[in-house]
Amino acid sequence: MAYDPNNIFARILKGEIPAYRVYEDEHTLAFMDVMPQADGHTLVVPKAPAENLFDLDPAMAAAVMRSTQIVAAAVRQAFAAEGIMLMQFNGPVAGQTVFHFHLHIVPRYADRPLRQHGREMAPAAVLEENARRVREALQRR
Amino acid sequence: MAYDPNNIFARILKGEIPAYRVYEDEHTLAFMDVMPQADGHTLVVPKAPAENLFDLDPAMAAAVMRSTQIVAAAVRQAFAAEGIMLMQFNGPVAGQTVFHFHLHIVPRYADRPLRQHGREMAPAAVLEENARRVREALQRR
Repeated sequence: MAYDPNNIFARILKGEIPAYRVYEDEHTLAFMDVMPQADGHTLVVPKAPAENLFDLDPAMAAAVMRSTQIVAAAVRQAFAAEGIMLMQFNGPVAGQTVFHFHLHIVPRYADRPLRQHGREMAPAAVLEENARRVREALQRR
Repeated sequence: MAYDPNNIFARILKGEIPAYRVYEDEHTLAFMDVMPQADGHTLVVPKAPAENLFDLDPAMAAAVMRSTQIVAAAVRQAFAAEGIMLMQFNGPVAGQTVFHFHLHIVPRYADRPLRQHGREMAPAAVLEENARRVREALQRR
């Protein structure tokens, strides 16, 4: 499948639609998943167009991993997460629903099961507050 | 928790116990998960001691990601996977059972649900054959 330059993450990267942004550097952007599996569920994407792991430039993959370490540490702190799960889906049968590479950062707790992937939109006020908490944790590092 | 230098992956890295190895470079090693969630389930680990994402040196994290791209492409080809899922667990509540950083490469198919994580040991002959298929795919690249 050819990369669709109008997929929703491409449009976020172009600034055409808003996102609950928490982190940005030269090669990557991180923002809240609007259908979180847990409070604080955050996504990291490369700025370069790539549908999945297999057409992501290795330098971009390294940049995503670096940003993921930074953002995941902030998410863990901001939400006092007992664990952090990373997930990255390639292909619809693997759970990929947006066809721009993205890495999921999902906080985990002993007493809270995960919500299902991509099912229910969180309220805007909750997403904004959660983004603010991650940004604050990033400023403290 | 301090890094346990005798965890099972550390012992594999030291050559003290065998593994179904498929790929190795200066900084990383990949081998079959002996309790696969799907046929072809492979793990990538850094050679440096690190319990999780938060104490993994960024250069090592980049090396793991690079090896993951290489090995995941081979796994996809070797098992004609329709999708590939990456997972990486930090902390017992996130599903981490071995306390040396590892990234899971899991093939996905429309008609086959995932088996549960870390439940059932696959037969040695199956694991050896699956490792052989990944190594062959790596040689073809």
